[in-house]
Amino acid sequence: MNTAIDPHAARAARQRVHDSFARQTVMAAFGAKLARVEPGLVDIALPFRADLCQHNGYLHAGISTAIADSAGGYAAFSLFEAGEDVLTSEFKMNFLAPADGEHFVATGRVVKSGRRLTVCQVEVQAYRGAQSALCLVGLMTAVRVAPANPGKA
Amino acid sequence: MNTAIDPHAARAARQRVHDSFARQTVMAAFGAKLARVEPGLVDIALPFRADLCQHNGYLHAGISTAIADSAGGYAAFSLFEAGEDVLTSEFKMNFLAPADGEHFVATGRVVKSGRRLTVCQVEVQAYRGAQSALCLVGLMTAVRVAPANPGKA
Amino acid sequence: MNTAIDPHAARAARQRVHDSFARQTVMAAFGAKLARVEPGLVDIALPFRADLCQHNGYLHAGISTAIADSAGGYAAFSLFEAGEDVLTSEFKMNFLAPADGEHFVATGRVVKSGRRLTVCQVEVQAYRGAQSALCLVGLMTAVRVAPANPGKA
Amino acid sequence: MNTAIDPHAARAARQRVHDSFARQTVMAAFGAKLARVEPGLVDIALPFRADLCQHNGYLHAGISTAIADSAGGYAAFSLFEAGEDVLTSEFKMNFLAPADGEHFVATGRVVKSGRRLTVCQVEVQAYRGAQSALCLVGLMTAVRVAPANPGKA
Repeated sequence: MNTAIDPHAARAARQRVHDSFARQTVMAAFGAKLARVEPGLVDIALPFRADLCQHNGYLHAGISTAIADSAGGYAAFSLFEAGEDVLTSEFKMNFLAPADGEHFVATGRVVKSGRRLTVCQVEVQAYRGAQSALCLVGLMTAVRVAPANPGKA
Repeated sequence: MNTAIDPHAARAARQRVHDSFARQTVMAAFGAKLARVEPGLVDIALPFRADLCQHNGYLHAGISTAIADSAGGYAAFSLFEAGEDVLTSEFKMNFLAPADGEHFVATGRVVKSGRRLTVCQVEVQAYRGAQSALCLVGLMTAVRVAPANPGKA
Repeated sequence: MNTAIDPHAARAARQRVHDSFARQTVMAAFGAKLARVEPGLVDIALPFRADLCQHNGYLHAGISTAIADSAGGYAAFSLFEAGEDVLTSEFKMNFLAPADGEHFVATGRVVKSGRRLTVCQVEVQAYRGAQSALCLVGLMTAVRVAPANPGKA
Repeated sequence: MNTAIDPHAARAARQRVHDSFARQTVMAAFGAKLARVEPGLVDIALPFRADLCQHNGYLHAGISTAIADSAGGYAAFSLFEAGEDVLTSEFKMNFLAPADGEHFVATGRVVKSGRRLTVCQVEVQAYRGAQSALCLVGLMTAVRVAPANPGKA
């Protein structure tokens, strides 16, 4: 993302990310928050929740995936024009370690922003005290939805 | 999964699936339930929840993924021996349509059950009245964890 | 793919698949052939070649992937209109067993044919005498390229 | 991969990578060569070949995948002990641009080296004159095969 970015446009894009994120009811339900929004780069932070776990008491893979997916989707969306929307086409996640931590940070980074498809790398770090561990790495494809064609991929 | 299965062993395996599922706090938090447990095949049902949505009011991709992942993991687990545990190594999900429905059913089916790795196909159907739509297809790899080596992949 | 298909259109589509396949120089180099072309379903057959192997003498994962990718891509393409082209956006392959056989058949099946994106399931069977083994299952996304916008995704 | 590595052991591991690569007949058939072998990091270089193309004259996705898979597999293998072998369990590739170049370099990097499973990031760069373009990014899982259990995953 080495193109020069107009500060005003970047600020407007950041606002659109915050506005859209605020409509993702699941993020509020989980207690997840936007921690960083830059052009093509988004972090989402999630405190551990004992009610979002799998059978061994680690965060469920679907939960770390949910924040990774939103981080990647909003990283893509942060480079879109006003009026455009974003949908997830597909993703692939590798779980490197149990999601064992006090809080988690998902990061989405745009690797390639195309006219229709944006490819992002995503990851989730688990933090416990001063320690962190990479527990998920993934790739996702987000679709840019033009104003006139909502919901079409 | 065409090997002959001892009915007693199958019943014990089904019970182990139910016991482990009951420890996945996230499934209770979502209101998800085991709808079918057969050797190598598991369905999980989830009623729509307005608090688990993405920015357009559809079920968030991480939520449909969570029930697909648990369905696949328990399909694998249903073929394991007593004392063994299951972890997700990786998965890949393609979203075919927005997860727009009154309730959802995730299905996991074992394609290949190996000594260490089990590969499953997963899908999620969205139901609205008498209509259903396939909204997710995926593949996952589950790891069999021996009693003496918990948490090691 | 349960829409009624005009026989004339299906024949023309099949011819387009054959014409495009004939331009894939790699398929001729491998000795791979189209074995079946139906609307939304394509088989590609490949005899074993000792010069296309990995370090243990099995067919290299990239080769079974190549025929799976072409099978999926042409399954998608078989449902496109004249003048449209196909590109692979992404795929995911799980290797269930070593690709150990005298010949191999890759199958691509369309799961969802969208305006821009088509999702296909792919698999590869390895045959030895009367035996066969499923050695690869995968998912892929193909992009429909309109005549006026070649090469754009 | 920040553990201290004994130079003698690293040299022996590098030799094992070269020996195993030399047995991959497909790499010789393609004209692919090992360009870099470091602990947990392998590059494979491939000159363009007109007989390894898809229908538009770009390198076929299966070919860029083949060198990416071998790069990732040998990156994993470079950290294994003598006598251990490597198999590909699964991979996922995103194609960012047509593989249009005079030569290509696939890079595999270990992200997590586990007792049984190693996860690698892979990519392929296409070079034309002084220009390069990232045409593939992917993730793969390699399996460590112990001497006594060849071919088992």
